[in-house]
Amino acid sequence: MDIGFIGLGNMGQGMAANLVKAGHRVTVYNRSPEKAEGLVELGATAASNVAGACTGDVVFTMLADDQAVEAVTFGEHGIVAALAPGATHVSSSTISVALSERLAAAHAEAGQRYAAAPVFGRPEAAAAAKLFVIAAGEAQVLQPLAPLFDVIGQRTFVVSEQPHTANLVKLSGNFLIASVIESVGEAVALVAKAGVDRQQYVDILTSTLFAAPVYQTYGGLIARREFEPAGFAARLGMKDVRLALAAAEQLEVPLPVASLLRDRFLTLVAAGGGHLDWSALSALTDRDAGLASDDSA
Amino acid sequence: MDIGFIGLGNMGQGMAANLVKAGHRVTVYNRSPEKAEGLVELGATAASNVAGACTGDVVFTMLADDQAVEAVTFGEHGIVAALAPGATHVSSSTISVALSERLAAAHAEAGQRYAAAPVFGRPEAAAAAKLFVIAAGEAQVLQPLAPLFDVIGQRTFVVSEQPHTANLVKLSGNFLIASVIESVGEAVALVAKAGVDRQQYVDILTSTLFAAPVYQTYGGLIARREFEPAGFAARLGMKDVRLALAAAEQLEVPLPVASLLRDRFLTLVAAGGGHLDWSALSALTDRDAGLASDDSA
Amino acid sequence: MDIGFIGLGNMGQGMAANLVKAGHRVTVYNRSPEKAEGLVELGATAASNVAGACTGDVVFTMLADDQAVEAVTFGEHGIVAALAPGATHVSSSTISVALSERLAAAHAEAGQRYAAAPVFGRPEAAAAAKLFVIAAGEAQVLQPLAPLFDVIGQRTFVVSEQPHTANLVKLSGNFLIASVIESVGEAVALVAKAGVDRQQYVDILTSTLFAAPVYQTYGGLIARREFEPAGFAARLGMKDVRLALAAAEQLEVPLPVASLLRDRFLTLVAAGGGHLDWSALSALTDRDAGLASDDSA
Amino acid sequence: MDIGFIGLGNMGQGMAANLVKAGHRVTVYNRSPEKAEGLVELGATAASNVAGACTGDVVFTMLADDQAVEAVTFGEHGIVAALAPGATHVSSSTISVALSERLAAAHAEAGQRYAAAPVFGRPEAAAAAKLFVIAAGEAQVLQPLAPLFDVIGQRTFVVSEQPHTANLVKLSGNFLIASVIESVGEAVALVAKAGVDRQQYVDILTSTLFAAPVYQTYGGLIARREFEPAGFAARLGMKDVRLALAAAEQLEVPLPVASLLRDRFLTLVAAGGGHLDWSALSALTDRDAGLASDDSA
Repeated sequence: MDIGFIGLGNMGQGMAANLVKAGHRVTVYNRSPEKAEGLVELGATAASNVAGACTGDVVFTMLADDQAVEAVTFGEHGIVAALAPGATHVSSSTISVALSERLAAAHAEAGQRYAAAPVFGRPEAAAAAKLFVIAAGEAQVLQPLAPLFDVIGQRTFVVSEQPHTANLVKLSGNFLIASVIESVGEAVALVAKAGVDRQQYVDILTSTLFAAPVYQTYGGLIARREFEPAGFAARLGMKDVRLALAAAEQLEVPLPVASLLRDRFLTLVAAGGGHLDWSALSALTDRDAGLASDDSA
Repeated sequence: MDIGFIGLGNMGQGMAANLVKAGHRVTVYNRSPEKAEGLVELGATAASNVAGACTGDVVFTMLADDQAVEAVTFGEHGIVAALAPGATHVSSSTISVALSERLAAAHAEAGQRYAAAPVFGRPEAAAAAKLFVIAAGEAQVLQPLAPLFDVIGQRTFVVSEQPHTANLVKLSGNFLIASVIESVGEAVALVAKAGVDRQQYVDILTSTLFAAPVYQTYGGLIARREFEPAGFAARLGMKDVRLALAAAEQLEVPLPVASLLRDRFLTLVAAGGGHLDWSALSALTDRDAGLASDDSA
Repeated sequence: MDIGFIGLGNMGQGMAANLVKAGHRVTVYNRSPEKAEGLVELGATAASNVAGACTGDVVFTMLADDQAVEAVTFGEHGIVAALAPGATHVSSSTISVALSERLAAAHAEAGQRYAAAPVFGRPEAAAAAKLFVIAAGEAQVLQPLAPLFDVIGQRTFVVSEQPHTANLVKLSGNFLIASVIESVGEAVALVAKAGVDRQQYVDILTSTLFAAPVYQTYGGLIARREFEPAGFAARLGMKDVRLALAAAEQLEVPLPVASLLRDRFLTLVAAGGGHLDWSALSALTDRDAGLASDDSA
Repeated sequence: MDIGFIGLGNMGQGMAANLVKAGHRVTVYNRSPEKAEGLVELGATAASNVAGACTGDVVFTMLADDQAVEAVTFGEHGIVAALAPGATHVSSSTISVALSERLAAAHAEAGQRYAAAPVFGRPEAAAAAKLFVIAAGEAQVLQPLAPLFDVIGQRTFVVSEQPHTANLVKLSGNFLIASVIESVGEAVALVAKAGVDRQQYVDILTSTLFAAPVYQTYGGLIARREFEPAGFAARLGMKDVRLALAAAEQLEVPLPVASLLRDRFLTLVAAGGGHLDWSALSALTDRDAGLASDDSA
């Protein structure tokens, strides 16, 4: 298939590479063109602008946030203007439900197709084609995409005919991760103040009921107070919790834990910690408990 | 070793049976004596009162709550009165930090030894000797107990020389489970109101970042709204969160998520749901979101 | 002075009337023209469109929300298009900080002046010229407005040179009222469940430390569970709390009580109570406490 | 009437003095005897122990907390042991609902009478006989006390036949004050970060909807960040919120704002601020907003 791929960050690199390796003709575009070099060596073609990546049957976007997606989608030289009627825009970025709705409307009006396919997984999973794809869109739009999703991920979940619902599921997942960070941070502060070794405690959790990747990853960071470099920055975590709350407000669903998380993130950001890993929420808990940074048992 | 075992509920049954099977001489006691029958068949001796189970080197207690432990420990015919100097009381119940401190003091005053050894795991794990034992106490007290812990569990974590710290760790674990119930309940309500199938959503979570027993167990109950019969009653969940908060208050550690959980449990109990499984917290979230019980997608 | 006045709801009626009575030449406009009739009898002139109310030195807007203010301000026939260079738009509506910033920018670009002057007080206070005016803007803009503010209110507070800061102060006031509603609702539920008479309890509060209008008004509504007709609808209360939170997020200020209020309003709205008076938040507290509507002691 | 008065702190001094001035024979007792000197000059008799103040018809206690009240009430030389059958203990201290229930039971068993009569008002109000008395007890117990309440206060509210209900009302009042401190602290942080003068903002509040003593007192302290010396220490505020939550838990009433306050007080106390005025909660809000202590506009 002729595929465009826009956005070659840590995630997009791996996804695009797997599409190339599977034999598709892939035209890639990134604002900083040097990100395309490795993919060109693999066999991809580099486009010099957004429109250049919109000449095929499908174009993926995998970008940082709403603003970046808006920038490549709308406007005179954007995807909506460039894509052929009947071709499909697959949005894999973690974006707001509201923007996903706008994308659906814009492509529909232009006679194009649109699907949302955000993913769960970190850059290593993207490189290893082990992502989980959360797909939503009309059945006839998703059907031809299924083989592509199989190339980039280990499993695809089709959650709705409405594309934006996939974005909601993705945001809810990030909300759940943040809630694990907060809860584990509270529990660690509690037992650490009683003299329990932070790492041993996390080992107990992850050996027993909480033997899940997310507890292992974030429990370790919290135990070691290792907040730099950020795997996922607090500022981005705050953004995703905010987007989850915004979608929930539209749906009239109160989310008390998400509200609490939003306040914690704001406190962290106001203290200058927006660049830290989002597990740095636990530093606030330690501070509020009167645990100095070197009290670690 | 000569071992007493007081409290033959779902957990105590399995633990005592494994001690018998390992060749120890076990004298068991339960307020309702019929609970001892199966163990007697296995080779245990049934005592007719608490003191009768306190004639050996060690006596375990595995009871429902503080009140039950106080009832067998203190008073004219209690463990403190009956146990020989130098013998050890091993408290495996989920009790308050404050009571554990009182037990330690009372046994010390009587020239006896005391260790706390609460466990993680459900009745099936107790029967299969697959519990995780969270032990705390002085080294010389714990050392001779190690083989016993190996008999009832798959792994022992020694967390402190102060017995009550093990109780704190146990309580913190139940707090974390409750926080998972609340967060997952919120996320399910959010996506369900957008039309996503509840069970599919839980499958996504447990296939990806949240592939942990606790998410599988409680996610399933939340998706199916299956709150009866209770695996662990909301009233007990509320009690444990309250005990975690009480211990945290003593240590001067704020726990915002635990505070929120306490309010949710109170709301559930005030609505007459104290007997339901603690995953019924999610029913409140559904209600607050305006999701009727049969809106399940 | 030649003054335009757009928005003749309960508040705008009284404000415009007082400007007429003070001898100003006032041209009024309202989407439903019959609202202008009484004012015309007093001596005002009725304009047939927005532009017709923008021919003088100053135009006030007193409208329901952001949308209504945007509708009369922007576009081909809006205030920005119609107002003379050097003339001033005084925005008295309770609008978002963000919209106030946009208004300031738009008028600046058009060579016009802009001030924000939201008010505290209910319709009766507007009629009696007893409002409190919260004004913000550049000194040279505010100076000539001072006599007008004196005509509509009993006191003017100049809070900033940046107009949008007055909107923030107004939103913060509505947040504080909502927090009184929530707290008093909790206290009333607590003592009522112990058998104290709801009205007597509110009388105690308002006779002692809480002898303020807001406690008298809302305490009474909460005690009597009198939520219809709405003096100020829950949906509007939710909107203002949301706008306060949005402004706080921009400023990086966490507001935990406001977050809690937002969740409560969402719960009320999801239950179909958006049209009730915002004091109906207390109905949720009663319900969560297991107090049926007729449990009132 | 022959009256004993135990507890001659800032509040008790004024209350006892007013009883003396009204012509009653008052025997006073305080652990530190020098506190009795001024009252003796007024005409009171100083007792050398608790029992010495229990020889009349009525004995008041006005002490700091549960512990102090327990210390004078129970035991060989306590009030229960010393008071004549038919005589009345009037407890005016701010104590727990649970202790008030124990006091009622103990006096009933001893054939004595018991009433709870906590008060609203500060030391100046106690001196000026301007307190508000919240009384509860059986009608025949309260009736002869009415003239005494009239001597110490400006108004008496009888809220229940069950004495402990008066204690609940008192605790609920302190909860409401704390909620004002928290909410106003949040609002001040919000507008201050936008450049509004803190004191001016409080002036606006207290000139308009919030013209109540509690907003004037605490708003001023928050604006000026004047937390020492404490009028009412954060540690005591935390205690009262905790007692309100404990009573609410018994009654199965969730109080989300009180839960939030408890966490804030714990944070303040953990940071070493337990001795500060409880309005220092606002210092946490300022800190969380990234407002340094000298950012005050």
